[in-house]
Amino acid sequence: MINAQNNMACSEQVEQAVNLLKSADRVLILSHMSPDGDTIGSAFALCRALLKLGKKARVECSDTLPHKYAYLFSDVTQEEFAPDLVVTVDVASENLLGDKLIVFKNSVGLCIDHHPSNGKFAKFTLLNTKAAATCEIIYEVLVKLDVEIDNNIAECIYTGLATDTGCFRYSNTTPQTLRLAALMIEKGADSARINKRLFETTSKQRLMAENLVLGTLEYYFEGKAAVIYVTREICKKCGISEADIEGIPAVPARIEGVLVGVTIKEKDAGIYKVSLRTNCGVNASEICAAFGGGGHASAAGCSFEGSIEQIRNMILPVIEKAIYEK
Amino acid sequence: MINAQNNMACSEQVEQAVNLLKSADRVLILSHMSPDGDTIGSAFALCRALLKLGKKARVECSDTLPHKYAYLFSDVTQEEFAPDLVVTVDVASENLLGDKLIVFKNSVGLCIDHHPSNGKFAKFTLLNTKAAATCEIIYEVLVKLDVEIDNNIAECIYTGLATDTGCFRYSNTTPQTLRLAALMIEKGADSARINKRLFETTSKQRLMAENLVLGTLEYYFEGKAAVIYVTREICKKCGISEADIEGIPAVPARIEGVLVGVTIKEKDAGIYKVSLRTNCGVNASEICAAFGGGGHASAAGCSFEGSIEQIRNMILPVIEKAIYEK
Repeated sequence: MINAQNNMACSEQVEQAVNLLKSADRVLILSHMSPDGDTIGSAFALCRALLKLGKKARVECSDTLPHKYAYLFSDVTQEEFAPDLVVTVDVASENLLGDKLIVFKNSVGLCIDHHPSNGKFAKFTLLNTKAAATCEIIYEVLVKLDVEIDNNIAECIYTGLATDTGCFRYSNTTPQTLRLAALMIEKGADSARINKRLFETTSKQRLMAENLVLGTLEYYFEGKAAVIYVTREICKKCGISEADIEGIPAVPARIEGVLVGVTIKEKDAGIYKVSLRTNCGVNASEICAAFGGGGHASAAGCSFEGSIEQIRNMILPVIEKAIYEK
Repeated sequence: MINAQNNMACSEQVEQAVNLLKSADRVLILSHMSPDGDTIGSAFALCRALLKLGKKARVECSDTLPHKYAYLFSDVTQEEFAPDLVVTVDVASENLLGDKLIVFKNSVGLCIDHHPSNGKFAKFTLLNTKAAATCEIIYEVLVKLDVEIDNNIAECIYTGLATDTGCFRYSNTTPQTLRLAALMIEKGADSARINKRLFETTSKQRLMAENLVLGTLEYYFEGKAAVIYVTREICKKCGISEADIEGIPAVPARIEGVLVGVTIKEKDAGIYKVSLRTNCGVNASEICAAFGGGGHASAAGCSFEGSIEQIRNMILPVIEKAIYEK
């Protein structure tokens, strides 16, 4: 799958990263802001491994780690110390360290990541853009560090893999991802419990908000476009923040026959974020570029000021053109 | 994982099944009624393999095969012939052959299945209750039949694995399931396309029904029980059958803090099917047994005649007792 040269380069990179970790005694590991299962899983897999090797290690993040991932870190003591190596995991750009941690931006000694957009902000970067999750790379590092993968580390790595692949649904899932997940289960990861917690559990507030948002669904252009609205009124009524309804923008484009799914989120009075997801080759990025936004071919976004009516009047004709001229 | 004796028994069973298939020239393969991805994937993986070996083979099912699985069978020619071997796949009981096919109930020569409740209705049964999907067993059979796994067969097998494990989320997913899925991707299964089609696509009607059903959500006992209603009125309004909203009964028990999730489905005027899903050790089967129903510890059902009001008055006190006496 990967050619020999790439493998060599990658294996050399892993070797260098491992040497940096081996020669350090006090390692500070940084996760990205708005932390997800891959950055937390990577951080605590590495932290647990370094502690097992008798080193000092702790994890920091500019945001509070979400409670749903507590099983990855609640038993790990976080000791204060002055680090001799700062490592970032799953952090594509130094800005993602957040307000509190950006002070480290010139002192990151090692960056372990899988994002193609990685900004190479660290002294040494171990980057593998073919990895579905940073946890895949962390696993390689731990093997080379000669750390035994115990059930806690296995749960950290499994969680990263599952989070970044939508539990093995998305196109970034490779045979290697599935085989590593299999191995982590054998090493003690309770995959059924983790999956139930991460993918089959929702809060009362979130379910209520989903229901109200779906109630706003509108179809246009013979059902080829679908629009939903996440208003501040809905969020207030349900007692959740607009950030709590991640995943909602994917819903309209999941509907059979829909080529363009649009989510209009009210960020502040008169300020809106529009997210587009597209199917069958309609280019979301081109549509959003017309309004100063951008992104990928099948997922993009742009911002607007004004009223919902005005936004609809601006964006719908461009969407119509993209649907029928494709 | 599996002890040597079990493996031997299983391997001998596979050998016998393979011999039956080898000595047949014209094989009729039967899927279960209300066909899902595992019974269709198993049937067409086997059918395609037998055709590759130069035999006659076709698949029958008492119900129309759902369009969403068309990629598994649309290119396979279904030739008429008098079979010399009838094989059922993923069929736990002869009743599941449906009205049209139950005529075969005494002539099934080979049953390949993974359900612990298998009724042993065939002359020879190849049963492996440790397999997450019947497709796992079919793969073993095809290897012993010396059939090359091409991309079409790989898509059939991948589909069975993904369907029966909720795309690798459920507790039946084993390391072996994940490794076989990895191999099927390498053999040409387009897992991203299949997963999008099966797990990330919904119809306009279904989404509308889901939204109306979620609008009926009621909480009881400090949020420890949640009840939703699937009425004939909702189904009529959305233009779908009550069977089209499979998966809905799982929703109430996914809500944080809910120990008992209840779905009350109106089957006919005054006739209701109640489905229970439970968390944290509350026994769904015991609750349903009080009303002549049954099932598993965390998923069970029972039937009622009367009004929604009457059903609520009967079942809620039993649920309350189960929640607080646990």
